Amino acid sequence: MSSEFRVIGTRQPRVDAFERVSGRAKYTSDFYLPGMLYLKILRSPHPHARIVSIDISKAQALTGVKVVLTHKDMPMYRWNPWMPVLTDVARFVGDDIAVVAAVDEDTAAEAIDLIKVEYQVFPYVLDPEQALSPNAPKLYPEGNLIGGKPTVVSRGDLAKGFAEADLVYESRYRTPILQHATAESRVAVAQWEAGKLTLWDSTQGTFEVQKGVAKALKLPMSKVRVICNFMGGGFGDKGSAQRHNVLAALIARQTGRPTRLELDRDELYVAAYHRYPVISELKYGVKKDGTLTAIQAKTIADMGAYNHTPGADGTMQMMMYTYRCPNMKGESYSVNTNNPDGGSMRCVGHPQGTFAQEVHMDAIAEKLEMDPVEFRLKNYARLEDGDQFNKIPFTSNGMEECIRRGAESFRWKERWQKPASGAGPVRRGVGMAIHACRHGGMPPGLSCSGMVRVNLDGTVNVLTGTTDIGGGQKGTMAMIAAEELGVPLSWVSVTSADTEVTTDTGSTGGSKQTIVGGTGIKLAAADAKNQLLDTAAAELKIDKKDLTIRDGLVFVKGSEKRVPLDQIAAKSPGPIVGKGIYKVPPNLVFHSPAAEFAEVEVDTRTGAVKVLQLVAVHDLGRAINAVTAENQIEGGAIQGMAFALMEEQILDKNTGICVNPNHLHYRLPSIKDVPEIVPIMVESVDPYGPFGAKGIGEPPYSPPAPAITNAIHNAIGVRFSELPITNRAILTRLKAVKG
Amino acid sequence: MSSEFRVIGTRQPRVDAFERVSGRAKYTSDFYLPGMLYLKILRSPHPHARIVSIDISKAQALTGVKVVLTHKDMPMYRWNPWMPVLTDVARFVGDDIAVVAAVDEDTAAEAIDLIKVEYQVFPYVLDPEQALSPNAPKLYPEGNLIGGKPTVVSRGDLAKGFAEADLVYESRYRTPILQHATAESRVAVAQWEAGKLTLWDSTQGTFEVQKGVAKALKLPMSKVRVICNFMGGGFGDKGSAQRHNVLAALIARQTGRPTRLELDRDELYVAAYHRYPVISELKYGVKKDGTLTAIQAKTIADMGAYNHTPGADGTMQMMMYTYRCPNMKGESYSVNTNNPDGGSMRCVGHPQGTFAQEVHMDAIAEKLEMDPVEFRLKNYARLEDGDQFNKIPFTSNGMEECIRRGAESFRWKERWQKPASGAGPVRRGVGMAIHACRHGGMPPGLSCSGMVRVNLDGTVNVLTGTTDIGGGQKGTMAMIAAEELGVPLSWVSVTSADTEVTTDTGSTGGSKQTIVGGTGIKLAAADAKNQLLDTAAAELKIDKKDLTIRDGLVFVKGSEKRVPLDQIAAKSPGPIVGKGIYKVPPNLVFHSPAAEFAEVEVDTRTGAVKVLQLVAVHDLGRAINAVTAENQIEGGAIQGMAFALMEEQILDKNTGICVNPNHLHYRLPSIKDVPEIVPIMVESVDPYGPFGAKGIGEPPYSPPAPAITNAIHNAIGVRFSELPITNRAILTRLKAVKG
Repeated sequence: MSSEFRVIGTRQPRVDAFERVSGRAKYTSDFYLPGMLYLKILRSPHPHARIVSIDISKAQALTGVKVVLTHKDMPMYRWNPWMPVLTDVARFVGDDIAVVAAVDEDTAAEAIDLIKVEYQVFPYVLDPEQALSPNAPKLYPEGNLIGGKPTVVSRGDLAKGFAEADLVYESRYRTPILQHATAESRVAVAQWEAGKLTLWDSTQGTFEVQKGVAKALKLPMSKVRVICNFMGGGFGDKGSAQRHNVLAALIARQTGRPTRLELDRDELYVAAYHRYPVISELKYGVKKDGTLTAIQAKTIADMGAYNHTPGADGTMQMMMYTYRCPNMKGESYSVNTNNPDGGSMRCVGHPQGTFAQEVHMDAIAEKLEMDPVEFRLKNYARLEDGDQFNKIPFTSNGMEECIRRGAESFRWKERWQKPASGAGPVRRGVGMAIHACRHGGMPPGLSCSGMVRVNLDGTVNVLTGTTDIGGGQKGTMAMIAAEELGVPLSWVSVTSADTEVTTDTGSTGGSKQTIVGGTGIKLAAADAKNQLLDTAAAELKIDKKDLTIRDGLVFVKGSEKRVPLDQIAAKSPGPIVGKGIYKVPPNLVFHSPAAEFAEVEVDTRTGAVKVLQLVAVHDLGRAINAVTAENQIEGGAIQGMAFALMEEQILDKNTGICVNPNHLHYRLPSIKDVPEIVPIMVESVDPYGPFGAKGIGEPPYSPPAPAITNAIHNAIGVRFSELPITNRAILTRLKAVKG
Repeated sequence: MSSEFRVIGTRQPRVDAFERVSGRAKYTSDFYLPGMLYLKILRSPHPHARIVSIDISKAQALTGVKVVLTHKDMPMYRWNPWMPVLTDVARFVGDDIAVVAAVDEDTAAEAIDLIKVEYQVFPYVLDPEQALSPNAPKLYPEGNLIGGKPTVVSRGDLAKGFAEADLVYESRYRTPILQHATAESRVAVAQWEAGKLTLWDSTQGTFEVQKGVAKALKLPMSKVRVICNFMGGGFGDKGSAQRHNVLAALIARQTGRPTRLELDRDELYVAAYHRYPVISELKYGVKKDGTLTAIQAKTIADMGAYNHTPGADGTMQMMMYTYRCPNMKGESYSVNTNNPDGGSMRCVGHPQGTFAQEVHMDAIAEKLEMDPVEFRLKNYARLEDGDQFNKIPFTSNGMEECIRRGAESFRWKERWQKPASGAGPVRRGVGMAIHACRHGGMPPGLSCSGMVRVNLDGTVNVLTGTTDIGGGQKGTMAMIAAEELGVPLSWVSVTSADTEVTTDTGSTGGSKQTIVGGTGIKLAAADAKNQLLDTAAAELKIDKKDLTIRDGLVFVKGSEKRVPLDQIAAKSPGPIVGKGIYKVPPNLVFHSPAAEFAEVEVDTRTGAVKVLQLVAVHDLGRAINAVTAENQIEGGAIQGMAFALMEEQILDKNTGICVNPNHLHYRLPSIKDVPEIVPIMVESVDPYGPFGAKGIGEPPYSPPAPAITNAIHNAIGVRFSELPITNRAILTRLKAVKG
């Protein structure tokens, strides 16, 4: 790789590292405009209730209050067909009932308390399995099962598969509600000027917000500009337009003043997305030699009150392509309940499913008395397997290398032991898990795109629709442009995530922006380079094919002759603007495999689990920036560790009220909880990604939890099927084992 | 015209009219950032002096002062080879000596007073003719004559021309120093973030400022972003980078804090550009029948201390193409003096020259006893004359229509009288003048360019490098895009003058942006339309040539079949981005002719002159927006009237100190001084402008002054050759006549 590229694969600090760590970066949350109004929301105290009457007169009369809106004032058109901007029927504790705009936050908060609402309380349902029963209270006339029926996929003959099996193993798994816990809350600042809305929003998808707000307010898209320069974390919570955007925009239009709506931390816990909890019921058949003969998976996802996307599908489908198996059936149920909204969170359903699948596989390996690594190597889906339902191979597949390099780095063969074979009060154990994610999936109408401008001095401006949500996407785009154009990285500046001036590449989510945004920028840089070479050819009177650009110089191939790029750029017949647009062919199956290995130490006296090491091996196709790619792996490892051992949002089962809406009681990890992480990158060089790159945003989250769960089993012989594995859970189970 | 276009030529309010008149528009002058430092400049009290010592210790010690810089701290590289950012040799009263950055304006001003400077005072020269004498004090080692020699052009045989003449008339004219008097001062706000400078500047040319600041601070252009959204007037004062830009940027980098530098009104009078005064010595030969046989013109321009552009050339050259004449010679001297900097102001030299030329022509007509209108009709340069030196025809020429329509509208034949033929204390008189300007001239490397994006809903974003300096350029670009694309104007939104996201079309000056920016946008819209039609052809399975777009619908030609544009846009293979780049062929001679007719009333008792009516006829090729085009004519008429009668910046002849640095004593006109203006647009449909349009920014300034001067002569028989014609000047001359 060293000689092939000059920029790609090098280790580069984030372009805005100094601003981010010094507090100088201006996030939306830091953004204030003169004369701004502050918005606060009144939230429902009931999980299910209708508003009988609402009295806003006292709130309106409070000095400093400019606007009070309720469901009666809302535009009829919604950006989301189910979710009203302000509702007359509350469907969860925290649902948006009214909004106040006042000259400062305190006044707005005071006014909220002055609104009197009379509710007619309805029966409610908080458990997704109960919600599926015919007698359950219904959130919508069409019932609580999203889509009206489960999603079912199958291939082969499941009965035959189980019949051929020497072992059939069944188990049930459950994951908790998890918070994105972004450093920056959901926050928007809106301003109307000359009939046009500018919205500064903390969002992963400026274009998604533009579409949503334009739809809600019936505005031409050209009159809605959405900007997100610095962004303080999204993880899937901020992929599209939400109520706060519409409210801020609406009141800015109504008052002619800028508005600001930022959710408090406790509001963010209840009124934003969370990772939806999933119940997975798995039944696998396997021969003595470890060959899988049947995979049956049923998943039930609690999507909460308004999310109508089939979240359980992601969990189930992942189980259909990680392993090769001739007989498979998946069945998934996505259910509405009177809980807050579930949503995407560093993947859509995979972490929940990978936990279930990989603990399940570990249990089977144990029963077969087979090395878990060998068991995975035998069954993982090969390149040619790909989509086993539609018989489409993967575009690339580094799974075997991930498993083998991880096992080697971790010294698996040396460290692995029979379960619970240690002695003494503190037991060590090791575990592993694999994972596979499909990245770069693009909804209809979305293409790889981007723009690259070359200035008169040869320096380069990259315009990308990709939001840098903290993953270093700005730097990734800069490196791709620098490599493709042949200029030093220091010459490149990136403007991103401004709908007015960049092109739509979808939200930074689904691990897709390196492919979607990156391919767009690579093509745009190639287009700009082509324009430069046209000018160079004319100026130097040398055939274009004999010219190349490197280090900011135009070289005549095979000679010492070179011309600085600024001399060529200045001779261009006009501004040099490169444009890249490319539609990824349909039906490609991207595949980002991973294998992770964990060692834990369990204190059987306290139940405390300490993760000693996590070797995290990921096939990312090609590392564009080795630093930020490793950061993705490390960040995911930390979140995944906390998924295993710490985090859980608890809703009171009787009232639907969140009892721990803060980082302390939710148990967000701190730096002291972080284990030793060994990130290892496998580069399978995908033929469809820019320079061979694939997505690396989401995959690191999934494998740590099952690897750690399996390591705990390996340490103390207790197998957990629910997360988080708290000290109390360990002690309870150990007590039960001891009898 | 009515059926040819749907948008072009209609009467449209400015897109930002409400913001501009309601005070909601955020000009750079309204722009403040948290934690900002305020900059103030210490200015030289001497017209020519060297700094012997400078003590900044007390200023630095003042609480709240963060930075004090002098010439010792300046970057070695200058954006202008002659002008240091802060100087060690003062060359005019007001020259920039030191800068203070403090937490508020008052502190900065206090600190300025604490700086102690010891000067060695040098001899100085304030008169341009004196500056040309060999013994004059020199501002630069190479002497005071810019370029070291005069610019000389000639054709034919001047001696022969004078020999053939029946009348040779010589005279000398002089114009004063005039202020742009922009509503918004020179002001910049600078911010560094992630190694990149963003500069909000009140500028006509964001790209010029970008180039200049990058050069001065040795930065890659990609790391300098210059933005100007709302702009409060330029008139040529704000076409490029200036000291305040460099200082704001430098201190923002040094301190890591945003900075703001806004010149006070009195500073703007001395330290910004003004219209340079010009002395014109004209000698014309003419036959009895009115045919010009010789034109000889010598011009001397006082460019002040630092401006090294040959400003006298513009004045002289204009005299070489307004009239056809076989024998011509022009000679121009641009001179440095110890006065503040002269610069462009709603044209580069033409108003000074048109005043001289048209008063001169009027005097000759009088001597020939010829109708001034007939005299112009006989001699104006025809389409085929064009550049008479290089024998290149004009691209278009509506001069004859301008003269004839103006004379008709004004009822010239009825209203014209022999000079001073009235009676009584208040005398009426009429006068006329013609004018011709070359527009759309483009410096090397500058092309017509622009970008147009079409959103998924078919609405349109225009990205143009053209700054809207108040002339309604945003609306012009929107109309061009709407017409070309075939969408309603209300669908179009314009982003302009942001170097990061638009393309360089040069500054909004030289009357060129309708041609340069407008052609770019027209081509970009055509490109976007082509992309839409490609998609439409594929979707509808109809040949592209049989499709057209009108009113936001794709029509199948010759049928009733139509499809809304959003349905097509949403099917596009990627974001629709149209790009327009076009290099206007070299050696084209654009030509924007005008004829204006004035009636005045002179009170011979008080010397007061009242302009009763001004008929202003301009060939603008094609009116894009009839409202803003007429506004250009009206605004120029008001400025031109004030040029004739009111405005003058007075520098004390002994000290170089400006004695009237404020609008009151400078005598800026108010709305009460505005005469009846009748704007008339002639549309010659230029083949090189977008939809036939030519520039209309500068031409309206030039003709009113000579038309009014000639009308005063017509009223009272006194011919003025210097401006302004104040009450006192009238009374003095009347007294002299009476003897």
